[in-house]
This record gives sequence, structure tokens and C-alpha cells, in this order.
Amino acid sequence: MDRLQRYQALVRDWAPWKVINLNPIQRGGILSPEARKAIVEYADGYSVCDWCPPKTPRLDRIERPPIHDFYNDLATFLDADATRVVTRCREAKFISFLMLKRARGGRYVVVDGLAHYSTFLAAELCGLQVKTVPVGPEPEFRLDPEGYHTAIEAVRRESGELPTAVLLTHVDPTYGNLQPAREVAKIAHDYGIPFILNAAYTAGVMPVSLRDLGCDILTSSGHKSWAAPAPTGILALTEEMVRIVLQPSQHSPVKELALLGCTVPGAPLIGLMASFPHVVQRVQRWEEEVKKAEWLAQQLERIEGTRVLGQRPRQHHVLHVRSEGLHQIAKRHRKRGYFLYHELKKRGIVGIQPGLTRHFKLSTYGLSWEEVRKVATAFLEIAEQYGIRTT
Amino acid sequence: MDRLQRYQALVRDWAPWKVINLNPIQRGGILSPEARKAIVEYADGYSVCDWCPPKTPRLDRIERPPIHDFYNDLATFLDADATRVVTRCREAKFISFLMLKRARGGRYVVVDGLAHYSTFLAAELCGLQVKTVPVGPEPEFRLDPEGYHTAIEAVRRESGELPTAVLLTHVDPTYGNLQPAREVAKIAHDYGIPFILNAAYTAGVMPVSLRDLGCDILTSSGHKSWAAPAPTGILALTEEMVRIVLQPSQHSPVKELALLGCTVPGAPLIGLMASFPHVVQRVQRWEEEVKKAEWLAQQLERIEGTRVLGQRPRQHHVLHVRSEGLHQIAKRHRKRGYFLYHELKKRGIVGIQPGLTRHFKLSTYGLSWEEVRKVATAFLEIAEQYGIRTT
Repeated sequence: MDRLQRYQALVRDWAPWKVINLNPIQRGGILSPEARKAIVEYADGYSVCDWCPPKTPRLDRIERPPIHDFYNDLATFLDADATRVVTRCREAKFISFLMLKRARGGRYVVVDGLAHYSTFLAAELCGLQVKTVPVGPEPEFRLDPEGYHTAIEAVRRESGELPTAVLLTHVDPTYGNLQPAREVAKIAHDYGIPFILNAAYTAGVMPVSLRDLGCDILTSSGHKSWAAPAPTGILALTEEMVRIVLQPSQHSPVKELALLGCTVPGAPLIGLMASFPHVVQRVQRWEEEVKKAEWLAQQLERIEGTRVLGQRPRQHHVLHVRSEGLHQIAKRHRKRGYFLYHELKKRGIVGIQPGLTRHFKLSTYGLSWEEVRKVATAFLEIAEQYGIRTT
Repeated sequence: MDRLQRYQALVRDWAPWKVINLNPIQRGGILSPEARKAIVEYADGYSVCDWCPPKTPRLDRIERPPIHDFYNDLATFLDADATRVVTRCREAKFISFLMLKRARGGRYVVVDGLAHYSTFLAAELCGLQVKTVPVGPEPEFRLDPEGYHTAIEAVRRESGELPTAVLLTHVDPTYGNLQPAREVAKIAHDYGIPFILNAAYTAGVMPVSLRDLGCDILTSSGHKSWAAPAPTGILALTEEMVRIVLQPSQHSPVKELALLGCTVPGAPLIGLMASFPHVVQRVQRWEEEVKKAEWLAQQLERIEGTRVLGQRPRQHHVLHVRSEGLHQIAKRHRKRGYFLYHELKKRGIVGIQPGLTRHFKLSTYGLSWEEVRKVATAFLEIAEQYGIRTT
């Protein structure tokens, strides 16, 4: 038991109320105050199941707490016909690939070259090959939507059939580029192929409309972008996709097969619901969030040999920084690249991968202007402290 | 926004600190005090990812919080070679079926007739047929392990090959019967078929050893039986099954394909970890828990025409009650079967499905003797109040 005591007082050093955490995957997942309260109410196991309707026992039918209404309000917010909360965005992609493969056949999916690794895993677990659409050269790494056309043709040539689905990562996790969803949707639809938008980094932080963007399926991540605890994924669908992706089980017709029945019957779903009003409001402030990111990018570029890669001006909160200047310090510092981590930490700033200086990522999402200025000042101070020029 | 305000103050009427909730799926999932604190610390999105090792980024490699150690301690506790926390017990079953099907082929799984619906869905989503092993007659509904022998032979005869896997529900959700795992394991192994034990209702509340019971794979549910928030599933494996079920992705070799990379990177996993010392201790008190269930069964049977079905004496906390006496009241009561729900609720007791009187389920797990006596008294009082004889 002595050995086990360590599990009894788990404390998070980098909780958001203690430090500025710039980790890109974390900024959009910081809970609203309402969610922080609600998850304690619903912390216990199957806490949302008290009022599960006996004749149609299924998570999305529960009206108390208002899960049924929430799914509808979420569909309205995303301009979809229906939504489900699943365990992760990657599960939403896996389910979509799997059910589309069953319904339409095919051996390939076409995916942007900057897609998250989990997109590739979702396809692999379905036994689908992936044809990637290449991105353009540095420093912007732009994606030409015409590449989808070429990739679809290549799949047709090589396999003799059309791909099962086309997927685009709305904002990619490497450069934070906002991609031309509508254009890709049009190409997919010209071939009659369903179009999946992975909005893990966009829905929940910026306005996103499934219908406007021409998606058949939209996936997102509650713990990445909806101020919700992990694990929460969002699956938003058109009516046509509901019939394919959410088809009932033959064994238990009341249950949706691909969801294996119920998905998140407890605290994380409640957290997502409690943060929803906060999320609906915050997406209206998206332009301000983008301004913070672009402003910080410009400040960081005052450090010699530093450039923020990807689209400029920035259209998203994730920044990919390349800094020869900071790398010069690392080459001669006793702590090597770790100096940056230590210097930032001294200033109450964490979340950049320890050891990295030449290429690293960060996010400004949800920081106040004061905090963004503090981050800029910290970087500029550190550069100057080690004799790197700043303009 | 007005419409959305309802999501901002979600309060659970039946929180365990307010009522005695007899819902069988909920009693083993009530959080320990340590877990209740820890999930608040780790409530935000990807809260456990601050120290993800950059070169081998994967949930089970994280040492701070001590996830890596926890997985090992959990394996020791379950007498397994390795464990993973997945999103749900049903996902653990799905993953096991899917990866075994890929590795071994086959078109069938053999499953006990009292298996949870999610076992059937897991097989269905893998495209596997299910051959069920029938259970014996009322009132005990015993499962004869020899039925597995017959079912395996039937699969061989009908499909020309052995089943992909054999699964047994350690304690079934309908009658709460504890099944002869060792005997079924032996039959499966005589054919060289992997044996999966679904321990959703046993591991975490009673002592369970993967090795002693002869399992190749053991699945369990954190929110059902480990004092953890939903969604948390447990997958425990022998070394041989690790090679099949946790095989690396070809695209991203550091990731485990069937897990789609990481599974529960936040609060529910932390809750499971924080409750673990409590769980390790509580399984030692299992005999006392069984005594409470059997005692309550005997008290309920004092009501005319009432019988607790399944094995006697009880070997588990789930009670399936059949009561002609209470049903007689329902037939003449203005509120029909709902009278029982209302009468119990008046007494601070909830969790029996509203409307049911002839057949209903409840659980005594984790109740104090005083609470168990309160439940018994409530039922006896209600019966007498409506003129049903009690002995």
C-alpha cells in the first residue's frame, strides 16, 4: 500500500490557475468555471444514467440532464442535422471511415499531408490505404485544393475505384494553417465522395458551419477546443450520413452500432455541456484571438533569425516558430536546448516542448492581452540576455 | 443564449451524498474522496500531457502524473502482464475481437447467453457472428460450462473453422451470477482459442486474477466497478495477447493501432488512478459485501411472493428481484408500478427503474449495514402499508 499512496494526492503543477501554459493542444481545453463545478456534481461513474428512458435506453435520449437537447443545440450551432458526443475526435474519424467503407466500399481515403497522426491510424485500423495530398513549400506550406483532384484520380487509376472518403484537416496541427474546406468539399462532391472535415482545432474556438463548408461529416475534439475534459469527441452529420454512420445494431436495434451503444455517460460529457454557452460566446471573439496570435508572431520575429511559419497573417492561434537565434544560444548553452524551457519556467510560462529551440509550437488561445505581452517580453528578454539581437 | 443557460448550472439530484441510489450500474462507480479531488486538479482537456515523453509520445509512457507506473501496478493487481486504460469496457471487447480476428481469422465468437448487449455490439461491429451458450432454467439460471464445448463444436460444424475467441461474462448483468471462469478457460484452451473474461462487474469490487482464472484477456469498466468517472475501460492482457492486441501502427510505430494512439488523456484516468488504493483495499472486504446482498435478498423474500433470482446464496452485489406481491399492489394502484418508485423516493431511496415491480434489479454494493437495513425496512413497510403479507 505504501507504494500506492502516491496515487492518492495527484496534484497538477501546471494547472491553468498556476502558470501560463502555451501548449497548443491545451489552450482550447481549459474548462469554463461552469464546467469545473458541473463535473464534480457528475463525477461518479454512470452519473448521467439516473433518467435513462427504459424503453429506448441510449445516451442521446436522456432528457435529465438535458443530453438530448444538448445534442440538438450542438447540431444547430454547427449547422448539422445531428450530432453525437463520442470518446475522441479520432474515434469519430474511425467510425466515419469504417461505416463509409461498409456502405460504399473502396480501399483508400484521400487526406491532406498535414493531417494528424490519428487520422492515419483511424484509416489503418479500418484497413484503408491513405493517399495524401502534398502541401506547398516553406515558409507557408500552403495546401492547393487541386491536389485533392490529383489524389482522387491517382486512387482511381491505381485501385480501379474511387476513394471511400475525402478528409481535410481544417487547421493542421503542425503549422496551424486554415485550409480551404469549401474548395475541397466541391472537388469531393464532384466525384460523389463524402467529405469529412476534421475540425479538432477549429470548431469550438472559431465559427464553423458544417453546411456552409459543404461537409458531410465534421469531427471535433472536446478536450482540444471545447473547454471540456478528455475524452470527448464530436461527430456532426448530415441526414444522409446519419443513415450510414449511425445505423442501428441488428442485435439491439435501439443502439447505434458504431457507437457501441453509449459513449461518454458521465463527467466529460457534462463538462462539455456546461461549457457550451461559454463556447457559443467565445467563438464570436475569434478575430481578437487571431490578432493576439499574429501580434505575438510579430514580436517573436523581432528575435534575430526567427520566423513564424505557415500562413501570414496568422489565421489561427497555433504558432510554429523557427528560430535560428534561439538555436544559436542552445548550441553553446550548458543546458543545450533546455535553456529555453528553464528560462520561460522562471517567468511562469510553460508548455513549449522542453529541449526545443529551432522549431517549436505554442498557442495564445484564451490568454489575455496582458498575458500575451508577458510571453512576448519573456522571449525578447531571454534572447537579449544571451546576446541575440532583437529589433 | 437564454435557452443555453440551462447548461450552466447542472446539478445532480441523486448525487450519492444526497440519496441511497440502488442502481446496479452505479454503486461500484461512486468515487473515492481522493478521486473527487484529483479530477478537479486534472479537469482541463489534455491535462495529463504536460510531461508526455517527446520521443515516445504515448499515454502509457507518461511518468508525471505516474500513468506508466499505474499501468504496471494495475497489471500486478489483476495478475496480468500488461494493462491499458481504454475508453470503455465495450471498447476493450471490440478491440480484442477485432485484433484477434485479424490475427487468427474466424467468423464467430462464442459468448454466454447472459452477456451484456455491448458484447454483441462489439462482435457485430467487427463483422463477427455470435454463438451463444444457453443458461439453465429459473430460478437460478446457471450456466453449464460444458455449453461452451457444444457451442464451439457447432461453430466448427457450421463455419468449418474454430471461433475467433471465447468470451464469458464473469458476473452477468441480469442475475448477477458468478460464472465458472476457470472451467470455460480450460475448454477454450483445449481448442487453442483465446479466452476473454468480461469482468465489468467483478474486477475492482472483488479479487480477480487474470492468471488464476486462465484468461488471455480481461476487460473491465472503471465507471462500473473501479470508483472512477466515465468513460474508463480496462484491458488486461497476457504477454502473448499484447503482441496481438497492442500491435504498433505501421504509420506511427510508437502508437498502438487499436487504441488509435492515446485513449483517456485526462480526468477520468486520473480519477481511476486516485481511487486505485481505495479499490485495492475494498476488494479485501468482498465477503462482507456479499453478505449484505444475501441478507437483503432474504429480507425482501419476507414479502409474499417475492424471490431473488440467480445463484443462492448470493455471490455478488447485484440482486434480481421477482415480486408477485409488489406486482399485486401495482395492479390496483393509481400510479400503477410507479408506486414503488414514489414510495421508495419518499424514504430517500432511488435507483430502481421507475414503473417496475414484478422484476427489478438493485445493488447493495458499498452501502453501510445501516443503509442496507434502511432499504430492507423501506420495502417491508411499503408491502405492509399496501396489505401484502410479510413474514
